[in-house]
Amino acid sequence: MTSQNPVFIPGPTNMPEAIRKACDMATIDHRSSVFADLLHPLRADLKRVLKGDTAEVFLFPSTGTGGWETAITNTLSPGDGVLAARNGMFSHRWIDMCQRHGLDVTVLETPWGAGLPADRIQEALSADKEHRIKAVLATHNETATGVVSDIAALRRALDAAGHPALLLVDGVSSIASMDFRFDEWGVDIAVTGSQKGFMLPPGLAIVAFSPKAMAAVETAKLPRTFFDIRDMAKGYAAGGYPYTPAVGLMNGLRLSCRMLLDEGLENVFARHHRIAEGVRRAAAAWNMPLCAVDASVESDTVSAVRTPEGFDSTKFVSHAAQSYDMAFGVGLGEVAGKVFRIGHLGSLTDAMMLSGLATAEMAMVDLGLPVKLGSGVAAAQDYYRQSLAQQRMAAE
Amino acid sequence: MTSQNPVFIPGPTNMPEAIRKACDMATIDHRSSVFADLLHPLRADLKRVLKGDTAEVFLFPSTGTGGWETAITNTLSPGDGVLAARNGMFSHRWIDMCQRHGLDVTVLETPWGAGLPADRIQEALSADKEHRIKAVLATHNETATGVVSDIAALRRALDAAGHPALLLVDGVSSIASMDFRFDEWGVDIAVTGSQKGFMLPPGLAIVAFSPKAMAAVETAKLPRTFFDIRDMAKGYAAGGYPYTPAVGLMNGLRLSCRMLLDEGLENVFARHHRIAEGVRRAAAAWNMPLCAVDASVESDTVSAVRTPEGFDSTKFVSHAAQSYDMAFGVGLGEVAGKVFRIGHLGSLTDAMMLSGLATAEMAMVDLGLPVKLGSGVAAAQDYYRQSLAQQRMAAE
Amino acid sequence: MTSQNPVFIPGPTNMPEAIRKACDMATIDHRSSVFADLLHPLRADLKRVLKGDTAEVFLFPSTGTGGWETAITNTLSPGDGVLAARNGMFSHRWIDMCQRHGLDVTVLETPWGAGLPADRIQEALSADKEHRIKAVLATHNETATGVVSDIAALRRALDAAGHPALLLVDGVSSIASMDFRFDEWGVDIAVTGSQKGFMLPPGLAIVAFSPKAMAAVETAKLPRTFFDIRDMAKGYAAGGYPYTPAVGLMNGLRLSCRMLLDEGLENVFARHHRIAEGVRRAAAAWNMPLCAVDASVESDTVSAVRTPEGFDSTKFVSHAAQSYDMAFGVGLGEVAGKVFRIGHLGSLTDAMMLSGLATAEMAMVDLGLPVKLGSGVAAAQDYYRQSLAQQRMAAE
Amino acid sequence: MTSQNPVFIPGPTNMPEAIRKACDMATIDHRSSVFADLLHPLRADLKRVLKGDTAEVFLFPSTGTGGWETAITNTLSPGDGVLAARNGMFSHRWIDMCQRHGLDVTVLETPWGAGLPADRIQEALSADKEHRIKAVLATHNETATGVVSDIAALRRALDAAGHPALLLVDGVSSIASMDFRFDEWGVDIAVTGSQKGFMLPPGLAIVAFSPKAMAAVETAKLPRTFFDIRDMAKGYAAGGYPYTPAVGLMNGLRLSCRMLLDEGLENVFARHHRIAEGVRRAAAAWNMPLCAVDASVESDTVSAVRTPEGFDSTKFVSHAAQSYDMAFGVGLGEVAGKVFRIGHLGSLTDAMMLSGLATAEMAMVDLGLPVKLGSGVAAAQDYYRQSLAQQRMAAE
Repeated sequence: MTSQNPVFIPGPTNMPEAIRKACDMATIDHRSSVFADLLHPLRADLKRVLKGDTAEVFLFPSTGTGGWETAITNTLSPGDGVLAARNGMFSHRWIDMCQRHGLDVTVLETPWGAGLPADRIQEALSADKEHRIKAVLATHNETATGVVSDIAALRRALDAAGHPALLLVDGVSSIASMDFRFDEWGVDIAVTGSQKGFMLPPGLAIVAFSPKAMAAVETAKLPRTFFDIRDMAKGYAAGGYPYTPAVGLMNGLRLSCRMLLDEGLENVFARHHRIAEGVRRAAAAWNMPLCAVDASVESDTVSAVRTPEGFDSTKFVSHAAQSYDMAFGVGLGEVAGKVFRIGHLGSLTDAMMLSGLATAEMAMVDLGLPVKLGSGVAAAQDYYRQSLAQQRMAAE
Repeated sequence: MTSQNPVFIPGPTNMPEAIRKACDMATIDHRSSVFADLLHPLRADLKRVLKGDTAEVFLFPSTGTGGWETAITNTLSPGDGVLAARNGMFSHRWIDMCQRHGLDVTVLETPWGAGLPADRIQEALSADKEHRIKAVLATHNETATGVVSDIAALRRALDAAGHPALLLVDGVSSIASMDFRFDEWGVDIAVTGSQKGFMLPPGLAIVAFSPKAMAAVETAKLPRTFFDIRDMAKGYAAGGYPYTPAVGLMNGLRLSCRMLLDEGLENVFARHHRIAEGVRRAAAAWNMPLCAVDASVESDTVSAVRTPEGFDSTKFVSHAAQSYDMAFGVGLGEVAGKVFRIGHLGSLTDAMMLSGLATAEMAMVDLGLPVKLGSGVAAAQDYYRQSLAQQRMAAE
Repeated sequence: MTSQNPVFIPGPTNMPEAIRKACDMATIDHRSSVFADLLHPLRADLKRVLKGDTAEVFLFPSTGTGGWETAITNTLSPGDGVLAARNGMFSHRWIDMCQRHGLDVTVLETPWGAGLPADRIQEALSADKEHRIKAVLATHNETATGVVSDIAALRRALDAAGHPALLLVDGVSSIASMDFRFDEWGVDIAVTGSQKGFMLPPGLAIVAFSPKAMAAVETAKLPRTFFDIRDMAKGYAAGGYPYTPAVGLMNGLRLSCRMLLDEGLENVFARHHRIAEGVRRAAAAWNMPLCAVDASVESDTVSAVRTPEGFDSTKFVSHAAQSYDMAFGVGLGEVAGKVFRIGHLGSLTDAMMLSGLATAEMAMVDLGLPVKLGSGVAAAQDYYRQSLAQQRMAAE
Repeated sequence: MTSQNPVFIPGPTNMPEAIRKACDMATIDHRSSVFADLLHPLRADLKRVLKGDTAEVFLFPSTGTGGWETAITNTLSPGDGVLAARNGMFSHRWIDMCQRHGLDVTVLETPWGAGLPADRIQEALSADKEHRIKAVLATHNETATGVVSDIAALRRALDAAGHPALLLVDGVSSIASMDFRFDEWGVDIAVTGSQKGFMLPPGLAIVAFSPKAMAAVETAKLPRTFFDIRDMAKGYAAGGYPYTPAVGLMNGLRLSCRMLLDEGLENVFARHHRIAEGVRRAAAAWNMPLCAVDASVESDTVSAVRTPEGFDSTKFVSHAAQSYDMAFGVGLGEVAGKVFRIGHLGSLTDAMMLSGLATAEMAMVDLGLPVKLGSGVAAAQDYYRQSLAQQRMAAE
């Protein structure tokens, strides 16, 4: 059922064998001290990965979507104002969730491919004299378009407007792969999952609350039980959980954090940048622009590659899957049929990435796209070997 | 971190190795047809396990608690009436969830150790002339007290009262271990999880809706997104999911269903009864009554054993864990300190169960309880070998 | 295909999960430095387990039988004299191998159940004035009879006779479970395998040579290639192997050594003694004598239990396997049909051992043996809990 | 310790996950019927893979080298004549083994890179009027040079010479990857291992005997015990083994056979040819000749690529390992430093192979070799995609 090839979807990502073995764990008693001995150091490690000394970290047997719901239901009340820019499918879905939970969302429509518009957000906040907006939603990395946004700029926008809204950040496809600074950026809630930068199977939502967000929990009126962090916090204080925890995934996440921290977060980010840059050079060699409008918003975890006008990019993804047993990401929403996506996050080597690029080339040529076999590979090889040589020299 | 001993908590249960290997799966593209090829047969198999031809089955990366939330948020609206009897910790928690979601719960207090009172439920329903009660909650097997209730009797109560309320059943610690008849009993929503009778790690909520429950979804006003079965149903129709599915667990669940169906559900139930009966005979040999008030409500998945007056049963659980590396369940809520629980569900052999009973005896004697070493073991051995001999004879 | 029950054959033994995971390793290049980084520390650890600072340790993708062949073909020449006592099936097989390789074996017939006769060995050596005997074979633990012999006494016998023969010791079912002192006992070659005390799958022969044995290699004329330690030594010196090594098993063995050394060898031996003593007390409660003639030769790794006259012990083993899915060892050779064997070595807990004893009781009662259910279990429980309590007190 | 990259050594090969899981098996009683139920169908499947209806197949916990020793010690006597051509390191080693076992080997020196010289072998056999030659050794695929020889031609040579010598064939790096016809070619003994075409860890020697070879066993005088097929045959007849079998590997081998037979042997061979041909086209694009003297002897499992005069090919292998964490094979013996080897056997996809070629290119450019990045990759891509397109068309 599984392939020997790596996957190049933008998550779930390829899993290191050691992490898979850590997840594949025999049953323990989750009400025993063995569990507490796992839980507390894990939460501490996650704060380090988030660069969030002030954060309270919660883990739910769920996904990033559940993390979003945790963020809004624990801090907001029906009718509360929320401000969000829509620049892709994932920002869209979070907005949709808010609307379905009875929040009053002000949507700033933003071109797909552009980053979140800090200036327009500042404007909207400044205009909100009565502070009806209680939260600003921000998708750090739009997985649909391969666009990373500047969260520090959003914080500056909030501060410049002198607005007390909470800053809620979706870091599902950025955290543990690209720099994320919970404390420094004044993030109030960060949401992520197990299945991207943490290189685990899906099944865990990871949510971090600032002290200000913790304070908002007391007055939030949206109903919640499964995602209620008050139950979770009470459980943690007693070394336990309000229901059955996903122990194996938590054990794997512990190892993942240790691997990330042992490698060094900055090294992890640099590694993602290297791999990503090779992919971008390959796309350039193919004469295919990225969905990202300029280099400043290019994501180091996923690239959305625009295929020529008139070509259905979904065909490429199907053909690569059927003929070469290799998974790339389809375009979603507004860019469906117009882009295909190459995920380059998590556990990847140069060789794995080159196998993805080489296979993409074969599939594109099969479908008549004007791509020269080996051209993108050569561009990536050239970058990989030179950057590696520089690393070696720097290390000497 | 894990022990070589089996666990005897009432779930998560001991996992067969083949199921663990099926869960430990390399990453696949959950938007590809490979996933659809897993999803649809799995949902069909689950209907067989539930004896629910009419059911629509949904799977959430969550737990049984999330399954409860799925049940109520998809069918009820703020202020709706709910009727529930409280006879243990898990019925209590579901009631609490309803209250926190703004439902108007009529609670029938019931002794811990007793089954759900069909007669009083019928009375309450008959009294509700205006049909303000929209749902009856029922915990099929109270894991806290080791008590199984008669769901068919509840259906008769509803019918006798001519009441249109939905019948929502928590089958977390019964389904796949004890007989459960979704269609025949007129269950409207059944909730269970992966980590008990299905012998998987925690992380999946399994929720089945009757056509009547499906109809209620359209008008239900409680906010939900993560647990919204409309998104789920839409995803399934397209062979996909509204967010990232827990593919490995679903792959393991597929194998679990096949193992259960290959063994034959009635054989699975008989096996659980055999193992349970040995435990009950051991408890009798120890002169320790069960929490269950009489034999008619004794659960075949968990036994709550009452320790003598003045003895703190939690000590027993701690001592067994620390000295013998063996996990039993503590008493919860009203019976905390008064009972310890022996889980005997999922994947267990006679030999495994006897190791649990023998270890319990050592721990009890260590703590001064008036138990004769080998006495409970002998009672269970006697039952196990004779019932096995009868099986062999029957098979010849 | 596998059972959830532990096995109670005298090896291969039950494997800790961590060791299985260490063995289950992706392919590496065994000609790279990664392999050397595994090989050398592993050989060093094995010397510690053997208490053999002077030993050269060799690892063959093979079994204990291959280890025997390694011992004789690397040190002896056709026609060389060998002295051996035959007190069970495994000493018999080694003698047979020597004869098939053209060695001149003097066999001291010894009752099955007795230990190796140091006095008669000394006599035979003293009589060999011309030193035609080049090697004395000794089976440290006769797995067929559950008898451990005194290797130090054999060394004294050799010394007293002033005889230069090599002392070749089969420690397959003793090493890593019972005390073994390569240097102190003047052992010249020790042979063992991966699948007993080391708790690994079968597939590795582990053979240690003293300096004197290494010297004998130069003149030994028996043909060998696969088992030639000269090729092996040459490979090791270059960080490699003369052919393809069983890398996964070696990786598992590395972890096994670390686990044994971390626990402390004396603790490992004491643990085996505790578990074994419980089994012996159970056998006494059943009124069934051991094959071992007296307490001084009772093995801490395997007990051969004599069944009553007229009862075919093989039936017991078959019945336990078929009805209870539990594996015990049959009697071999002279004691076939007269004993069954309980392996109690490797990775076992009290609870696991009690499950074996309880199952043995059921099987015996099924077959009409005069055993009281729970009697052996109670005797073992009593010993286990009291000895554990003493350990706890000693630790305080 | 392991890498995420595939290995490109000519074995041990990359293992499919399903096979690894089949090998990673809990302990069973190898004296029970469970083992017999594995053993007999496995031996039957192996005959199918070998195309040897007349063969008796034996499995040793050992390696290919042990398989060679099994072949000669079971059929030959000291002083017997053996005829062998030496055209690479592995034929050399087998010759060396024969000499160390006291056989009288006539060596036909053959250029490394050439196939076995059927004409000279026929000549030598014709000259041996007294039939002093008892066996002809043949290395089907010389792993050191990437050269496959024509075994059918050797059979014709034997027949033409009217010589009764046994035909002993080393198929370690050919069987299960390239066509092998035990019966049709009149092979008397075929030797292989678990770790190449069968895609398992190392640890099993697989040896097949023709009826004529079985007859020779009766008179063969070379000493053997561990490798004695008489003991093995006796064990098999009783559903068992003469010593502890490597059960997990055998379980994995069973799955491997089923996978090979389900795919269809001719499809397996065609798949190997496709992958190999891509590698050869890449080498041609690099302007680097193969060690194989002409296309007729090019191996479909390993290619030995000649590096330019004056360049030390071992450096390439070290650099690829250190800088790119990728394993290629060094040159051995006469071609040490002159070739590097690319293994392309076992479980490989086009994408995996392209990752190997792309990495090789980076490493070569790093070391100053006159290779254009992407050139070999493009040549392989072109071949892979066109041959795949032809397959698709043929299937329609």
